[in-house]
Amino acid sequence: MSTSTESGSESGDFNATRRNILASGAGVAMAGAAAGLTYAAGTSSAAAHQSSSATDAADAAAGPDPVAFRGEHQAGIVTPAQDRMHFVALDVVTKDPQELKLLLKEWTRAAERMTYGAEASPGGVVGGGPYRPPADTGEALDLSSSNLTITIGYGPSLFDGRFGLAGRKPEALHELPGFVGDDLDPARSGGDLCIQACADDPQVAVHAIRNLIRIGFGVISVRWSQLGFGRTSSTSTSQATPRNLFGFKDGTANIKAEDTDALSKHVWIDPAEVPGAAAWMSGGSYLVSRRIRMHVEVWDRTPLQEQEDIFGRDKAVGASLHLPVDKRDEFAPLDFTAKGADNQPRIPITAHVRLAHESQLKGVRILRRGYNFTDGSDGSGHLDAGLFFVAFMRDAHKQFVPMQQALAKSDVLNEYIEHTGSALFACPPGLRDSDDWGVQLFGS
Amino acid sequence: MSTSTESGSESGDFNATRRNILASGAGVAMAGAAAGLTYAAGTSSAAAHQSSSATDAADAAAGPDPVAFRGEHQAGIVTPAQDRMHFVALDVVTKDPQELKLLLKEWTRAAERMTYGAEASPGGVVGGGPYRPPADTGEALDLSSSNLTITIGYGPSLFDGRFGLAGRKPEALHELPGFVGDDLDPARSGGDLCIQACADDPQVAVHAIRNLIRIGFGVISVRWSQLGFGRTSSTSTSQATPRNLFGFKDGTANIKAEDTDALSKHVWIDPAEVPGAAAWMSGGSYLVSRRIRMHVEVWDRTPLQEQEDIFGRDKAVGASLHLPVDKRDEFAPLDFTAKGADNQPRIPITAHVRLAHESQLKGVRILRRGYNFTDGSDGSGHLDAGLFFVAFMRDAHKQFVPMQQALAKSDVLNEYIEHTGSALFACPPGLRDSDDWGVQLFGS
Repeated sequence: MSTSTESGSESGDFNATRRNILASGAGVAMAGAAAGLTYAAGTSSAAAHQSSSATDAADAAAGPDPVAFRGEHQAGIVTPAQDRMHFVALDVVTKDPQELKLLLKEWTRAAERMTYGAEASPGGVVGGGPYRPPADTGEALDLSSSNLTITIGYGPSLFDGRFGLAGRKPEALHELPGFVGDDLDPARSGGDLCIQACADDPQVAVHAIRNLIRIGFGVISVRWSQLGFGRTSSTSTSQATPRNLFGFKDGTANIKAEDTDALSKHVWIDPAEVPGAAAWMSGGSYLVSRRIRMHVEVWDRTPLQEQEDIFGRDKAVGASLHLPVDKRDEFAPLDFTAKGADNQPRIPITAHVRLAHESQLKGVRILRRGYNFTDGSDGSGHLDAGLFFVAFMRDAHKQFVPMQQALAKSDVLNEYIEHTGSALFACPPGLRDSDDWGVQLFGS
Repeated sequence: MSTSTESGSESGDFNATRRNILASGAGVAMAGAAAGLTYAAGTSSAAAHQSSSATDAADAAAGPDPVAFRGEHQAGIVTPAQDRMHFVALDVVTKDPQELKLLLKEWTRAAERMTYGAEASPGGVVGGGPYRPPADTGEALDLSSSNLTITIGYGPSLFDGRFGLAGRKPEALHELPGFVGDDLDPARSGGDLCIQACADDPQVAVHAIRNLIRIGFGVISVRWSQLGFGRTSSTSTSQATPRNLFGFKDGTANIKAEDTDALSKHVWIDPAEVPGAAAWMSGGSYLVSRRIRMHVEVWDRTPLQEQEDIFGRDKAVGASLHLPVDKRDEFAPLDFTAKGADNQPRIPITAHVRLAHESQLKGVRILRRGYNFTDGSDGSGHLDAGLFFVAFMRDAHKQFVPMQQALAKSDVLNEYIEHTGSALFACPPGLRDSDDWGVQLFGS
């Protein structure tokens, strides 16, 4: 199936971190033995890895701490949003459920290794010897873990019966409805599986996706992929709010990792509270992706006040429009009742922040985690740029759908944007020690 | 023509750096006046800017020094290669040479401002007031200059007579010939003009290109654009050699900024030594771009030794293959005469490093400055990934052409790559104080 299974040790040992390989300088094969960063099943928390790698002198050049791979929830959801992203949707091409299950096991190992800065598979670039394809593609050899997170999700089509998974399909995992104004490209929508790789270095994110695809050769096929060059959301109070390609701060009111009550209520699945939720999805979340083309050229010819009225915040600071200029504070609450001198609401009735606000949506909130993209040009003299919207929530049909229905109907932003891709995936909870995605999905 | 000319001061003053705007917190319009970072024509070296901005308390949060915009040569050629790139090729759609000349003047001002971390045009996001489109699109407001460089180039078609420039066409600026195996897409090739923006933050590079396009609304149109997520070349001895998507270190033997003799000989145009070179191109250089799709899936199934034989270097360290494993040093000279136990050259006759080496090409060298790209998927289950090759040289027809002819004919790498785009641009020399690109191109 995959080349990685043909080479190197199958013992599950990390035989080298990428940085140890580098530090060793003379000969990578030797570094594997010397580095001694042993992956001990059952103690695979980030702390344990840190502790064992701290004994290695080469680790002095390690860079930032890696993000923990295992835990109650998958990484890459409430992890402080990294700077860059590579996202891929895949279709399963094998007909054999066991091949899929084995792939999910191999992916687990590779994802965990890469999260900690190691090569994708034991043996790495040179451990398999000269006559085998390397077990890692090598382009991230010199780079640190860069806060890499790898998040997996399963699309509705995966549970269509091909793999005996129909009985495990979560009730809420069914296709999103169409929305007014949708212009979806089937080649940029859907997928049996998705993998989201986020990292502060794009080469690390691309390397992770590419190696996972490679390990799945013959089992999966790329349906679509998206590179995001800049985060558009904060998911932690420790982060500054970034800007989208309309130049506005985005996600100021996003759910943050520190707000555990809001996460429990809006993001993490609790089968006891969500009727029909599959038990195996407890602690998981639903991922909605929307590729939103932004017609930046048209937007850029729009007067400032119109832009601000459309968003409902000012452009410079990101503050609610009801605040006077000298008291603008990004984090001051939005006041939808405040009126201007013309006796009209200072935050217009159709402003984006109003339509998407929980107070207008019976308390609905989502965790946004999107990225700016620029994919060349559109053949008509314009940049093909926009927002790759990614959001996590407990039930897409009860959260994203009513929100998007309100936006699709009334948001003046629709004159400037176009939804060109859409997908829904069920992201399982985090893995316990010694678990893998295959066992988790198939139930044994 | 452009919205930027309609708003804000035309005095040429920097009324605010982006970071000053941020630091001011309460009201951007005020920050403009308060910041006091004055652009003094005639003293516009990086040092002068640094000096004046150092008087500003807000500057404490400034981040790294910006790259000097003016000088003997354009920035972005021997500047230590930044991490990310956004490159655009444009066609001129006006028929009026004066409009083009005025645009080049406006671009000069905007490029210089953005290089120093300021908004694209005076007035910036809010200086034009509520009823005009902002003079800057805003998505880089919170970001530092990030070592931004903006490099301009002119394609052969710009000198076809539409703009009275036929007499100023450099002799060497004519289309590249076709090469064996080319699979060029016209929609990804050529262009009247190009702008290369490199920065350590991709949002800063994308912002720069987008704002220059915007300023040119009605005068130019996007022909193609390319985002590069990771540099594949070092252009300074201070930089570590990065890796391409085949996992190999690339550009170890590249011309470096510190080697001024090699730059004079191979990169910078000296009309006294290049017959037919236009005098106005003295100190300039030719830029060749090639979009090279890399079939990474096929490559990844190739044994390590075959990969190394194709490149001529080892994968882990990037050392010449003639060196024994325990003496591998990336920067040790390549020995093309050394033979292995089989009495065959240790660096194969068709190895990439041999074919592209100056010793095999009568001393020809080029300055490489390419980037890895990943542009989604190809519709056939694979990533659309590769190398956006960019190189600078004194005469493309005497340097790139013989090199590429040798590679196109014999390089085994061709089994794994495909040239899908190509372009040639004449990059003028750097600007002297008070000069602009319009005057430089048109001669007065």
